[in-house]
Amino acid sequence: MHTPPELLRAAAIAAMPAQTKTHLLNPNAVRSAKALGAATGLKHLGIHLMTVQPGHAATEYHRHHYEEQCFYVLAGQGEVWIDEQPYAVGVGDFVGLPARGAAHTLLNTGSEPLVFLAARQMLAQDVCDYPRQRQRLYMDGDEEVLVAYEQIRPAPG
Amino acid sequence: MHTPPELLRAAAIAAMPAQTKTHLLNPNAVRSAKALGAATGLKHLGIHLMTVQPGHAATEYHRHHYEEQCFYVLAGQGEVWIDEQPYAVGVGDFVGLPARGAAHTLLNTGSEPLVFLAARQMLAQDVCDYPRQRQRLYMDGDEEVLVAYEQIRPAPG
Repeated sequence: MHTPPELLRAAAIAAMPAQTKTHLLNPNAVRSAKALGAATGLKHLGIHLMTVQPGHAATEYHRHHYEEQCFYVLAGQGEVWIDEQPYAVGVGDFVGLPARGAAHTLLNTGSEPLVFLAARQMLAQDVCDYPRQRQRLYMDGDEEVLVAYEQIRPAPG
Repeated sequence: MHTPPELLRAAAIAAMPAQTKTHLLNPNAVRSAKALGAATGLKHLGIHLMTVQPGHAATEYHRHHYEEQCFYVLAGQGEVWIDEQPYAVGVGDFVGLPARGAAHTLLNTGSEPLVFLAARQMLAQDVCDYPRQRQRLYMDGDEEVLVAYEQIRPAPG
């Protein structure tokens, strides 16, 4: 029987090619992603099945100014850093990250792949802080620019 | 050690009280929900851990005009109906529902609780169709109104 485009069965997800990406600011941040939301036609919910190998981070320590993000751990053991403090996380744990809130990152501290389901808003435009680098990324559709904190100034009244 | 508000561990989620709701149009649609996103301060991503007991539906067969929704099955066996066709779903299956797309519902057809993680946009304003009832629900903040399809008319040019 045919499967409708809204439904991705576990076997189909397993067969999907993953997109592996190394973070531009952190060579140890390597994650592979399967875009489940986009595959079913979603435009405003980014739903990604993410895998991070042992010893790697999912991302560089960061926070977003506009986009909310969250993740739910499906397999493995890790450490989430929130506001420069580490916390152990495992299967069934959830982390929600309000915009302009605490910075965070996620490490795989176990010996198995760390697998989690991540959700985000898919905003076309956003701003992201990397506090450990003192750099800010401005995202605008298919273009971006990275600037040092020192370059940013107050907007005129 | 204290746990920050962004982190909900599995044990804390298990201890959260669930909100059980029977659908206004379907006495057999009974689901219990834990609002993980709201508990961590998210306002634009609704993340709910949902449980449906055997023999029950998660919702009345419906579709949204504006809000995107999706879910990922964590435990149990069910049947998702999409555009009036049934499809078996189980652990690791994902369903994404674009706005103004196919109508859908989800049934627990197994003997264990059906548990899934649902994500939605949390729009303050939305419109929802119930095709089997030929009724439409207009949602506006903390108020709503249900009307028959026959009451709706084209907007003047």
